[in-house]
Amino acid sequence: MIEGHNLRVDGGRLWASLMEMAKIGGTEKGGCNRQALTAVDAEGRALFRSWCERLGCAVDTDGLGSMFARRAGLEDLPPVLIGSHLDTQPTGGKFDGVLGVLAGLEVLRVLHETGIRTRRPIELVNWTNEEGCRFQPAMLASSVFAGLTDHAATLEARDAEGIRLGDALAGIGLDAARPVGGRPIAAYLELHIEQGPILEAEGADIGYVVTGQGLRWYDVTVTGFESHAGSTPMPRRRDALLAALPIIQGIRDLALSHAPAGRGTVGEMRLLPNSRNVIPGQVQFSVDVRHPEAAILAQMDEGVRTLVARVAAETGLAITLTDIAHSAPVPFDPGLLAIVREESTAMGLKGRDIVSGAGHDACNMARAYPSALIFSPCKDGISHNEAEDMKPAWAEAGANVLLRTALRVANAP
Amino acid sequence: MIEGHNLRVDGGRLWASLMEMAKIGGTEKGGCNRQALTAVDAEGRALFRSWCERLGCAVDTDGLGSMFARRAGLEDLPPVLIGSHLDTQPTGGKFDGVLGVLAGLEVLRVLHETGIRTRRPIELVNWTNEEGCRFQPAMLASSVFAGLTDHAATLEARDAEGIRLGDALAGIGLDAARPVGGRPIAAYLELHIEQGPILEAEGADIGYVVTGQGLRWYDVTVTGFESHAGSTPMPRRRDALLAALPIIQGIRDLALSHAPAGRGTVGEMRLLPNSRNVIPGQVQFSVDVRHPEAAILAQMDEGVRTLVARVAAETGLAITLTDIAHSAPVPFDPGLLAIVREESTAMGLKGRDIVSGAGHDACNMARAYPSALIFSPCKDGISHNEAEDMKPAWAEAGANVLLRTALRVANAP
Repeated sequence: MIEGHNLRVDGGRLWASLMEMAKIGGTEKGGCNRQALTAVDAEGRALFRSWCERLGCAVDTDGLGSMFARRAGLEDLPPVLIGSHLDTQPTGGKFDGVLGVLAGLEVLRVLHETGIRTRRPIELVNWTNEEGCRFQPAMLASSVFAGLTDHAATLEARDAEGIRLGDALAGIGLDAARPVGGRPIAAYLELHIEQGPILEAEGADIGYVVTGQGLRWYDVTVTGFESHAGSTPMPRRRDALLAALPIIQGIRDLALSHAPAGRGTVGEMRLLPNSRNVIPGQVQFSVDVRHPEAAILAQMDEGVRTLVARVAAETGLAITLTDIAHSAPVPFDPGLLAIVREESTAMGLKGRDIVSGAGHDACNMARAYPSALIFSPCKDGISHNEAEDMKPAWAEAGANVLLRTALRVANAP
Repeated sequence: MIEGHNLRVDGGRLWASLMEMAKIGGTEKGGCNRQALTAVDAEGRALFRSWCERLGCAVDTDGLGSMFARRAGLEDLPPVLIGSHLDTQPTGGKFDGVLGVLAGLEVLRVLHETGIRTRRPIELVNWTNEEGCRFQPAMLASSVFAGLTDHAATLEARDAEGIRLGDALAGIGLDAARPVGGRPIAAYLELHIEQGPILEAEGADIGYVVTGQGLRWYDVTVTGFESHAGSTPMPRRRDALLAALPIIQGIRDLALSHAPAGRGTVGEMRLLPNSRNVIPGQVQFSVDVRHPEAAILAQMDEGVRTLVARVAAETGLAITLTDIAHSAPVPFDPGLLAIVREESTAMGLKGRDIVSGAGHDACNMARAYPSALIFSPCKDGISHNEAEDMKPAWAEAGANVLLRTALRVANAP
């Protein structure tokens, strides 16, 4: 059995593949619009399939369209699964998800070229619809694979035009009747860009993701009274926007009171009737709070409820708080994490522990299988944006860590 | 010459006419959707025309479609013009504008029945597109009539579907080539619902409108940096919404610092990208400040500029302030106001001075002709709403004051 201590990916080839994939759905501003299960996604899938088949890997798809390129092992053991996703946001970048899939491809290419056989099979996955911009929720394919949600129900998700996910699969020749998950996996490894500014700011090459943040999402609706901006005296107003202000400020203060890991964001907001000369009668907004520790996230949840109740009492307006989503913090596998750290350090890379602020397929997989998530830096923390960028050296370093971790895990006794 | 001291309108007939007009474009919730120059507006216009012609009045239209029903005077003098508008908001009520037109119709009916001839002609006007919901700006027909804006340019206004105002006129058989204004008017009198809560709250039957508030409209754009709600640490954020909060609060404080007449409102707001898990990169919102005194409105304008500059300096974000509209306070004619007060008092009505918070055709007319605006109470100050309502006795009282003021002015030496 070859240990592979000296193996390295071909960084230039990895970068060239990233750039080639980026042409499919490429935008004028240098980003990508390759949304899940569209014609351009099908084109990206075909390119990916041809690359894998050229390495002698059989490519299978499951009942949600996720693609699995399999490289057989020496023994008929559960595979080591590596990968990420090729779908993008409508104004997405070239690296979010794609890095993890094509770094995985680079792993298969290196093994193919060197003729190295691993003890366990290695499978490279391209998860369907990670982004969640076309079909909600995000990461739905890995969720069903990991047994967290139901296959049949997921096929009923509809996009903004009312198209069923099941029909969108059929539309690009995928078979929704195939099984999803329900099989043993030795380990799941995912390389992804950080989508945050920390690694670059600290000059790190690699992030060892210890935990996926837990999050709680809420919708808040403040109901005041719509009236004329000119004829309604100030003391008679029941302005829903003014009542929303201390809640928005309070969400920020709540996150700061749990620094440095706490996060609190109001990202979405809607005024009714949203007219220049009408006092807002109703304001609806989202609240997103996050923390990597379940106990503190629970405290933050209490904080949100207390805050909303206090402002409702103070303003006398009706304010409703609706729970939209709750995702518990996800610890990644300590054993795998130790291997990632060792291999990274052995290659002289500078790494640091980090929390994943965004959700990833690895967060779903970690609830069912030993899983590791590895971060590469990206420029200025910019992601979900056509300006998303990274240095080729960062991509190469991440792929090398993925390669060597995958080899270690696939060959482990 | 008959003085008409004992004349009264027929309150029941006025109410019945209001209810009949309200059927045209009537909504399920009891409001009206009779937007300017639509097919339902044409239907309302035809009903109005038939009512006027039944009284022997010739009905003329001008080059913006405003309708003038003329009752000749004993002498060929400039007419006394009375009226308001029949167009409504998309979810408007039965009284905003309609009360003034149909109270004016009631004036013509009483004169017709009693055979009273006035010294000056009396013309009843239905102004086109007062609401401004279909074509901007609001009150565009009275503005051109009063010589404040240009006829040809106004015909180029387009609605949300891109239809030119000039084409919309032709679409319901109106002739945009006819002249607009440019003729002497002895006085303009308009009865309108208050669209605010003051008269009802004080148990008043009538409001003597001393001044139309001045207003300043602005757009504010706060530019921060769009980034991920999970992966961006709180101290690294440039959240445009958080920077907007002290401005929104400050606009309210500015209005309160000029109590009781000052008004300040943020009614319209837009977040970009407006996504639950993205920190707002940009926030755009409207600012509306009002005061009946020009000197104080100028101070408030300074206050807005200082506020925006201070928040920009404190947050380090780029904040732009754009002037959208400025309307100077409009004093109404003191001589006409005195007659309104006298006639109201003589009938035993309870009246009070009031400021007009909303814009009205009378505000345009007052810049060119002696003008008076008379308010009737409406329920709970609700307007621009299908729930808009008033008591029949309020409508009758307002119409009586309009009748007797019009007679006094039309017969004045």
